[in-house]
Amino acid sequence: MTRSNTSLGLFTDFYELTMAQAFWQSNQTGPAVFSLFIRKYPADRGYLVFAGLRATVEYLENLHFTDADLAYLRSLGRFNRHFLDYLGGLRFTGSVRAMREGSIFFANEPVIDVAGPVIEAQLAETYLINQINLQTILATKASRVVHAARGKQLIDFAARRTHGVEAANEFARVSYLAGFDATSNTMAGALYGIPVSGTMAHSFIMTYESELESFRQFARSFPDQSTLLVDTYDTLTGVKNAVTAALEMRREGHHLRAIRLDSGDLLELSRKSRAILNDAGLNEVQIFASGGLDEFEVDELVRAGAPIDGFGVGTKVGVSADSPWTDCAYKLVEYDGRPVLKLSSGKQTLPGPKQVYRRRSDDGGYVRDTIARAGESSPGDEELLEEVMVAGRRTRPEPSLGELRNRFQQEFACLPEQFKSLRSPGTYDVHVSRELSTLRDRVVQEAKVHEGLDE
Amino acid sequence: MTRSNTSLGLFTDFYELTMAQAFWQSNQTGPAVFSLFIRKYPADRGYLVFAGLRATVEYLENLHFTDADLAYLRSLGRFNRHFLDYLGGLRFTGSVRAMREGSIFFANEPVIDVAGPVIEAQLAETYLINQINLQTILATKASRVVHAARGKQLIDFAARRTHGVEAANEFARVSYLAGFDATSNTMAGALYGIPVSGTMAHSFIMTYESELESFRQFARSFPDQSTLLVDTYDTLTGVKNAVTAALEMRREGHHLRAIRLDSGDLLELSRKSRAILNDAGLNEVQIFASGGLDEFEVDELVRAGAPIDGFGVGTKVGVSADSPWTDCAYKLVEYDGRPVLKLSSGKQTLPGPKQVYRRRSDDGGYVRDTIARAGESSPGDEELLEEVMVAGRRTRPEPSLGELRNRFQQEFACLPEQFKSLRSPGTYDVHVSRELSTLRDRVVQEAKVHEGLDE
Repeated sequence: MTRSNTSLGLFTDFYELTMAQAFWQSNQTGPAVFSLFIRKYPADRGYLVFAGLRATVEYLENLHFTDADLAYLRSLGRFNRHFLDYLGGLRFTGSVRAMREGSIFFANEPVIDVAGPVIEAQLAETYLINQINLQTILATKASRVVHAARGKQLIDFAARRTHGVEAANEFARVSYLAGFDATSNTMAGALYGIPVSGTMAHSFIMTYESELESFRQFARSFPDQSTLLVDTYDTLTGVKNAVTAALEMRREGHHLRAIRLDSGDLLELSRKSRAILNDAGLNEVQIFASGGLDEFEVDELVRAGAPIDGFGVGTKVGVSADSPWTDCAYKLVEYDGRPVLKLSSGKQTLPGPKQVYRRRSDDGGYVRDTIARAGESSPGDEELLEEVMVAGRRTRPEPSLGELRNRFQQEFACLPEQFKSLRSPGTYDVHVSRELSTLRDRVVQEAKVHEGLDE
Repeated sequence: MTRSNTSLGLFTDFYELTMAQAFWQSNQTGPAVFSLFIRKYPADRGYLVFAGLRATVEYLENLHFTDADLAYLRSLGRFNRHFLDYLGGLRFTGSVRAMREGSIFFANEPVIDVAGPVIEAQLAETYLINQINLQTILATKASRVVHAARGKQLIDFAARRTHGVEAANEFARVSYLAGFDATSNTMAGALYGIPVSGTMAHSFIMTYESELESFRQFARSFPDQSTLLVDTYDTLTGVKNAVTAALEMRREGHHLRAIRLDSGDLLELSRKSRAILNDAGLNEVQIFASGGLDEFEVDELVRAGAPIDGFGVGTKVGVSADSPWTDCAYKLVEYDGRPVLKLSSGKQTLPGPKQVYRRRSDDGGYVRDTIARAGESSPGDEELLEEVMVAGRRTRPEPSLGELRNRFQQEFACLPEQFKSLRSPGTYDVHVSRELSTLRDRVVQEAKVHEGLDE
């Protein structure tokens, strides 16, 4: 709910601005490189799906401070007037190398390298981590549901449970990228061109004299596109009312699309509902299920052979409930041509600009990745980081969501099954190249000597 | 990420719009009442903190569909032209009764009752649940950290981990409401007038020749407001560098405000750091700690007597990691003067417009709550639902964030300790009034007879 006169420039941790002033006042304004990566897999994850590049590029292309932003900063009494003038003219003039949005990646692999004057690149930290953390968590979670559903229809029902409107729209986008078929979020449909879909709520049924009457009225408005919710009072009685409505629709030359189950034992109710529908000759009426589903429950239902044609998933998936955050980091790896790292306990980083190489088998299957220094060669391997911005401008048009979706589907098929397991997946093989590990050891050694630390 | 020509009117589940058309086409446009409530406590919660009313009222006052919204809906080929004309003129004309923002409430208690023409009140479902679910989760989580910190300073460091910019700004707001002292999120500071605070990042230190040099440069820019991050290379060596810088600052007539620990064993490191600072005569320099902290870790550190003056909390708190969602529901409870409910397994609702009464002891302490029909009397008890909108307009000005914060502090003191336990808290006593339970039983009975269900 940003106010119109406040820009995303202000969406930055306050220390980014105090550091910027200290950099500026001490003339420490040389070129820097930052790497963005996720250190550890969230629980039960054997891979991650990179998302958030679209937001990153849009942000960096538009980074600036408005007069209102500057007036606010001035009011804090902490900033030098000349520094604020400088900030008023600041734009991002650097370059960005990144994986393609929708790429499958692994722990510790940089997904974005940002190079530019240190103040500009530093200021971007908060927004970049925020967006890539969020979108990557959600895309990864959605891909797990797609895997579990084994081709059954999936609709995003998360809009009421995501952490805000922005998160709802991003979940709709990245879940579609990962293979969902539609969203219930109308705004996301409008913004991103995702198919929208919906059924009906219990409240609709309760306003009418009876459930059957409500079904008839809904079918009059949407004679060939109705999905009737059958669990308001009693599920199987509801199915019988849906049968009555469906047979009436058939007599008018129309057809009921589906019924929706939203509570109770979905396996048992779907079997009984299927039998009732088939006994009435309504074999073409589909069964749609919802109600607190995630990849684990979808997996169980599909394995058990539940006669369910599609799932609406919301709550637990839209917040990635089992793993709602990652330890996504954006770390300085080079300043003024000098590779750097931090040694903080458990949080050591890899120095310098990097490239990630992927080796594939003859049929395209992923074999192993290597994190290397940028510019190293690794013959026959695929380079995952590509140039996306130079001198503050994007170097290629934004791919369409449909393209990203198709590409994700192809890539996901190349990831061996063992890394897709919903519980305790295998650990994919990620090497650090010899050149990069030699560099790391050297920089660690230099830092220790320089700071007077014991071995 | 909303586009300027798309309004929040479109942020609605698609079924709200298809139901609206069906209501409209069947002339089912009578007055309705919806109750918003949370059915179950999230894990380890014995109370909830109501937040999101500000967003609710702002949304309802501005609810409308722009030409761009209508053009999008038309493009879907699902809606009647006359219905879209009707939608173009739709505004919220109903009334709202709600608890005050920041109120402490309990499972199943309605926090908002919305009354109005059924189409208007139904359309608001998605946004209202989204915002109240989000803000209430975050306010509740923040209040737990405040409780654990027992008066130590708390700074919101969550901006990089929340689910989007909107969630970051809302977390800053509700954590301040619940008693945090400041936020690192500059945008939230500007939007909501919350004090902003920040230290420095590892990257700042790494750009300079040495840690000590970076401390000196930062102190030159902020001679009396510096907090130096000491764990980039080795924490205790970092503390000694901070001591050197602090003694230099003192000679210039300035003072170091604090050091910050961000990794390792915070209890041990804080004790050793305190000793080093005190040995150097720097007893006034504070110790600030951060790094993946939540209420459980803050509680342990405070109980152990760690000499830490303040905590920066982010990741796990800003997404309410142990409970990132609630089963927040918005249910039709009355249509055209007729109380209604749904019987769905495990999701039965309480019919009719309601009031929540709170009984207090002589010293103000909460004794028990009663969920009753609106208009019932409960002498001596406090009425928690108050009128906030009538005929589509707010009936009172928005209270300031400072007022809400003060009031929350007073109320939180009235909640008995047993319900504040961080693990397995007690269950607060919430009754359903005899009149309301009689009504529920009657409506259940009527619905079963009407739908031909067995007892």
